Amino acid sequence: MSGILPEGKIVIAIDAMGGDHGPPEIIPALSSVLAQRPDVAFRVFGHKDLIAQQLSKDPALARAVTIIHTEKTIGSEDKPSEALRASKGTSMRMALESVKEGEASAAVSAGNTGALMALARIVYKTLPGIHRPAIASVMPGIKEESIMLDLGANVLVDAETLVQFAVLGAVFAKKQKKIDKPRVGLLNIGSEDIKGPEHIRAAGEILKRIEFPGTYHGFVEGDDIMKGEVDVIVADGYAGNIALKTAEGVGKLVKHYFTQSFNSPLAKLGGLIAYGSLRKFKHQMDPRLYNGGVFLGLNGLCIKSHGGADSLAFSQAVMLAVRLARHGYIQQVIEDINHVAGQETFLNPQAAG
Amino acid sequence: MSGILPEGKIVIAIDAMGGDHGPPEIIPALSSVLAQRPDVAFRVFGHKDLIAQQLSKDPALARAVTIIHTEKTIGSEDKPSEALRASKGTSMRMALESVKEGEASAAVSAGNTGALMALARIVYKTLPGIHRPAIASVMPGIKEESIMLDLGANVLVDAETLVQFAVLGAVFAKKQKKIDKPRVGLLNIGSEDIKGPEHIRAAGEILKRIEFPGTYHGFVEGDDIMKGEVDVIVADGYAGNIALKTAEGVGKLVKHYFTQSFNSPLAKLGGLIAYGSLRKFKHQMDPRLYNGGVFLGLNGLCIKSHGGADSLAFSQAVMLAVRLARHGYIQQVIEDINHVAGQETFLNPQAAG
Repeated sequence: MSGILPEGKIVIAIDAMGGDHGPPEIIPALSSVLAQRPDVAFRVFGHKDLIAQQLSKDPALARAVTIIHTEKTIGSEDKPSEALRASKGTSMRMALESVKEGEASAAVSAGNTGALMALARIVYKTLPGIHRPAIASVMPGIKEESIMLDLGANVLVDAETLVQFAVLGAVFAKKQKKIDKPRVGLLNIGSEDIKGPEHIRAAGEILKRIEFPGTYHGFVEGDDIMKGEVDVIVADGYAGNIALKTAEGVGKLVKHYFTQSFNSPLAKLGGLIAYGSLRKFKHQMDPRLYNGGVFLGLNGLCIKSHGGADSLAFSQAVMLAVRLARHGYIQQVIEDINHVAGQETFLNPQAAG
Repeated sequence: MSGILPEGKIVIAIDAMGGDHGPPEIIPALSSVLAQRPDVAFRVFGHKDLIAQQLSKDPALARAVTIIHTEKTIGSEDKPSEALRASKGTSMRMALESVKEGEASAAVSAGNTGALMALARIVYKTLPGIHRPAIASVMPGIKEESIMLDLGANVLVDAETLVQFAVLGAVFAKKQKKIDKPRVGLLNIGSEDIKGPEHIRAAGEILKRIEFPGTYHGFVEGDDIMKGEVDVIVADGYAGNIALKTAEGVGKLVKHYFTQSFNSPLAKLGGLIAYGSLRKFKHQMDPRLYNGGVFLGLNGLCIKSHGGADSLAFSQAVMLAVRLARHGYIQQVIEDINHVAGQETFLNPQAAG
């Protein structure tokens, strides 16, 4: 299941039918990935006419793409259970299956999150020893970017699962940030050992004494996420999802304030003069640059793009897939989880999925 | 315990020694409150020389202030348990006691949060029928401001306690926003009924069927907080604190990006031309305007100001105290909690404290 073709290319499976826009945004995203990474090829799942129409605009991309025609698509509003029953032959499922069969190294979809997670668990299966998969994303920060997980694959989880998330996130940070010993913080509501809910405190106690592929930094609070002083922020899916969505909401509020304030003729003139700075500010604030939720803990890579992603946003999700595939994320996790499990009896084999 | 002096004034008790700055920022804050609300008087607790020195700059304020000299202060780093033992005669405790004794309607302190909550619980006591006090604050929003609680007085709580928070928050919103039926949302990680942790779903079920001083809107997500489409956002202290701190962190990141982007001579020229708009934008983004965590569920009003508050920020916290005191918050909560308790058997009287 290496996903590297004889010619040494990294192959990424693309669900071209997921999300609000489909091929008109997804195919141009692949052009931009290919421009940065000529070592990448794509297996694109979806309606062949819609895909071919977009490919006709970029012959270089057309040479790097294999189209696999599908008639069926999972709707963005379908319930995961219904989507699952009718998933055979859909672009989403077939993209995952091509990873499972070793034809591609990672799958990227902008489709229905619940259906994608359910299908990824069925098609890929959970890695041996891992209790629960998690969703991770790259977060912006004042000092540096960080990796945050879980962003909502789970709700509240136990301490052992949080420790596994620390391993999953640390290996991600190693590959993404090219560092040796990522600093890992546990999201909590205070920095002292006695603060916070029981499952967080218990996970902190375990992380203090075990050896794992990162350095345990201690508790971090919500306002530490954007400081970027740790490389990985570990949270249960309840706290992680609330933090992620709150950050998105504040971003929208800032954008609203900004647009509302700079609407006079004088402000527009000032904005024109400060054009370069304004553009830099808007670029840094652009949430599209952080598009891509990575499903971790499964025996295959899957990246969920935002449903509303345009080509710039979708290309970021594909680049995440390329980086993780290139650096052997899954093999590394298997080794590290086994190493952690060997040190402690808390990793309960019955609970493994 | 009305706190309204014979002359019809609202009296606010001020801990002048709490926070990073003490009287040099706290006393000027009172000048600005008095300018807006000539019906307010203050009982100011702290070192008489430091207070008098500041009062000498504003004779009108000096006439509205009664100084109560204290020698002792609770340190910002003291542990709540230690602070409690040594609290007698401190400016913080004496400010709370003056509310308890009916000499003032509310107390405001920028001191140690843990010590202030512990002391407020001891001095005021929890209101009859209320399981746990909560901390609430006004949050900015695209449409409107909202009230969010709990911001960290508790960690995870049960469904009944969340329902009580809904009552505490709805009454706050009625007083703060001068509305009749505040829309109340429950913070969760999805909007469907089946999403999220058990305690949140159970609270949603109760809020659907009871009559309480608000309208139940359903679940809201992190990005809904800043939309301002509901008047009250109810969360356990774990999720609420993480959301609040994350929002603060994003605010700091935006400020960092902004300062970093607008540092060229051209950007400065543009900024000068767009000065009015830039100032408006910075004002809207100013976290000082939302300073003030209100302790709810106690038999007395207490507002916690940020420790680093300057006079502008501290004056916002005092204005919150004035509004809640003027509109009889506590009496209203007592009535509404009893009304809710009368409808349902879930409010367990043994758990009241």
